[in-house]
Amino acid sequence: MNYRIFGIHPVMEALQTEQTIDKILVQSNLRNDNIRKVLQKAAELKVPVQQVPMEKLNRLTRKNHQGIFAFLSPVVYSRLDVVVPEIFEQGKMPLILILDRISDTRNFGAILRTCDAAGVHAVVVPEKGSASITEDAVKTSAGAVFSIPVCKEKYLQRSVEFLQQCGIAVVSATEKTDNLLYTADFNQPVAVIMGSEEDGVSPQLIKMSDYAVKLPMLGNIGSLNVSVACGAVLYETVRQRLT
Amino acid sequence: MNYRIFGIHPVMEALQTEQTIDKILVQSNLRNDNIRKVLQKAAELKVPVQQVPMEKLNRLTRKNHQGIFAFLSPVVYSRLDVVVPEIFEQGKMPLILILDRISDTRNFGAILRTCDAAGVHAVVVPEKGSASITEDAVKTSAGAVFSIPVCKEKYLQRSVEFLQQCGIAVVSATEKTDNLLYTADFNQPVAVIMGSEEDGVSPQLIKMSDYAVKLPMLGNIGSLNVSVACGAVLYETVRQRLT
Repeated sequence: MNYRIFGIHPVMEALQTEQTIDKILVQSNLRNDNIRKVLQKAAELKVPVQQVPMEKLNRLTRKNHQGIFAFLSPVVYSRLDVVVPEIFEQGKMPLILILDRISDTRNFGAILRTCDAAGVHAVVVPEKGSASITEDAVKTSAGAVFSIPVCKEKYLQRSVEFLQQCGIAVVSATEKTDNLLYTADFNQPVAVIMGSEEDGVSPQLIKMSDYAVKLPMLGNIGSLNVSVACGAVLYETVRQRLT
Repeated sequence: MNYRIFGIHPVMEALQTEQTIDKILVQSNLRNDNIRKVLQKAAELKVPVQQVPMEKLNRLTRKNHQGIFAFLSPVVYSRLDVVVPEIFEQGKMPLILILDRISDTRNFGAILRTCDAAGVHAVVVPEKGSASITEDAVKTSAGAVFSIPVCKEKYLQRSVEFLQQCGIAVVSATEKTDNLLYTADFNQPVAVIMGSEEDGVSPQLIKMSDYAVKLPMLGNIGSLNVSVACGAVLYETVRQRLT
């Protein structure tokens, strides 16, 4: 798949066929009827548009870009309020993963790969502060970005509320608790929150959670790589559900 | 710590203070008494020496290298036949991790970080085909390379034999088995083998193992990132030993 397209016609076609566009770049000093039509369509669909000098577009491609360039998202984002009812309707016990500002694309890819293996039904990320689904993330995920619904939500607090209203227990993984991972009951509808590489799950989300758990840390180092920690937590879920 | 040193005196001093040197580079057309003394000492200590043209050394540093350059290892390697008896003498139940040709430095670092957290007593790597302990590996390990004994062994088969003779059960993590991870007994002296990113644990080592286990793979992708898989396996060990 080609994630970068340019030229009036290709960009307009991507908009008309409702492909997920992360961003459109438009040459700042150039306006004509065609460009205006594209920008109008982009505005309708709430696709972000950025004004850039011609030189920037020239650096992105040597071909004739006609003043317009678009970055396609490799995935179509899902809606949490659509996905969750579907999981229940299919008679499955929901396992949702909320990623609170995971910013490293390799971690994000490895986590999605783990989600596929551990039977996670959907991944929730916030609109701001998350790793973009780059080609690197796609590669590290071994293709899992295409098979697991990823829901981009404006406020994770609202997502947590919504999940709780659906009868899903929300469990934060954080070192700021005394409960070991193994004391949690994952044999029920569950959403797990994993936090950013920098500062973990945000305090507000921990506070809202039904339960908080930590991995035992038996050595000198205070934390694990987030994709490793996520694997250990998700596989404890798998263990409890299988045994 | 400075991993690259050059010049007659610094290299000779590193040899005399028995710092772990991965390799010495010497300018191929240059021989004098000082160089000869360094090479003699290196031969005594079995440090690998490589002849290189002056241009190569000039590319490594702009300073006066005097025809000699050494790469220090950030860690001092341990000996498995020394480390294992020590673990038993300290009254601990051994948990050893054997890494069969893990070649990615970031995976290697993340695994060592997990080892610290999961209470692994020693890591065994083969002389050939393993990731070098680079600055990147040190960083990814969050410093764990300095606290966990790493044993570099010529033949992993011999290491497995030795561990079995010490009464340690050897468990391979491989998808080529029907046993789920959760059927293994980790509440005994155990060595876990994790295999390379390319082709997993080598067939000979699987054959020699006392037991083989796999992680449940519930989705479409056949394998996990090796550092994630290693985390899931080691934390099952932690769970069994704690609960």
